[in-house]
Amino acid sequence: MQYPDPIAKLIDSYMKLPGVGEKTATRLAFYTIDMDKEDVHTFADALVNAKEQLHYCSVCGNITDVDPCAICTDKSRDRGTILVVEQVKDVMSIDRMNEYHGLYHVLHGVLSPIEGLGPDDINITSLIRRLQNNDEVHEVIVATNATPEGEATASYLARLIKPAGIKVTRLAHGLAVGSDIEYADQMTLMKAVEGRTEL
Amino acid sequence: MQYPDPIAKLIDSYMKLPGVGEKTATRLAFYTIDMDKEDVHTFADALVNAKEQLHYCSVCGNITDVDPCAICTDKSRDRGTILVVEQVKDVMSIDRMNEYHGLYHVLHGVLSPIEGLGPDDINITSLIRRLQNNDEVHEVIVATNATPEGEATASYLARLIKPAGIKVTRLAHGLAVGSDIEYADQMTLMKAVEGRTEL
Repeated sequence: MQYPDPIAKLIDSYMKLPGVGEKTATRLAFYTIDMDKEDVHTFADALVNAKEQLHYCSVCGNITDVDPCAICTDKSRDRGTILVVEQVKDVMSIDRMNEYHGLYHVLHGVLSPIEGLGPDDINITSLIRRLQNNDEVHEVIVATNATPEGEATASYLARLIKPAGIKVTRLAHGLAVGSDIEYADQMTLMKAVEGRTEL
Repeated sequence: MQYPDPIAKLIDSYMKLPGVGEKTATRLAFYTIDMDKEDVHTFADALVNAKEQLHYCSVCGNITDVDPCAICTDKSRDRGTILVVEQVKDVMSIDRMNEYHGLYHVLHGVLSPIEGLGPDDINITSLIRRLQNNDEVHEVIVATNATPEGEATASYLARLIKPAGIKVTRLAHGLAVGSDIEYADQMTLMKAVEGRTEL
């Protein structure tokens, strides 16, 4: 016996999602059948709309349904600083804390010789062009992750941007707030000692 | 900053699925944006089609896109036995082994005084009606789960059906094939000893 065609097709579709195998897909498909009709239609429309209406902002690379994106066109933001992140999700994480009010630039990746990703494979060219056509920017904050690739990308960007007389900074490394020294790794502790501040 | 509307809506929809929280929904939504356009449309269509075209078979309660379902109308099947299961998914599990060729009946639940589920809340009435209008059936195999509720439902069905002169059987309890006696629980071992067979 096979599942009826409509449910077999839905299982196939769910299985295309990351981390969803046949068992989970089957569970989700049966759950869908018992959902409110309206919710299922909303879900289907949301899928199509997200795919059709969203694209990357031509200025900063953030995801948006208008171009340039809402952040790039927001007049109340400080146009003097650009914060560079690896992924679109990082923009949300940083903006959520309501402490940074400048602009963003999304690289969509990091330099990674192992994966064969060079400067042309990530969104660096448009960052440089953005800085060249603009004398308002006085600081670029590089907020790539604290991984070897993130660090390498940060150094690369610093070498590229500093000669233009723009300040390049990096997020502070150190102990996470609320964490125990006992459980901190050696590298983090070293960075915390190096970057100690006066009380 | 909020996510653009299309992605916020898609995150909301993904969050309606069981076991999907905000983090997973966000990850799935971003994944969807990078999927093939065709796959996204197929997914959206599959959702709507599954919801619109599927319903429960009026005879056996199995899920189907035609009524009665393909199993109920299959002339090559043994119409003398009905195997009773708790859920639609159990039909698939049993039919997959290609050993049972009779008909099915899906209860959509079990008797559960704790959850307030009595005989009228599950698909029992239609099973009785099926047996009354039919003198072909000579055996009902009760394949509810080996849980207290499953056992109670099996006993209830046996008391109801046996007086009509129909044989009522239950799946065998015992050690799972390939399992160690060392790790078997006391109840399972007891059932395995009780149900021992001669070599």
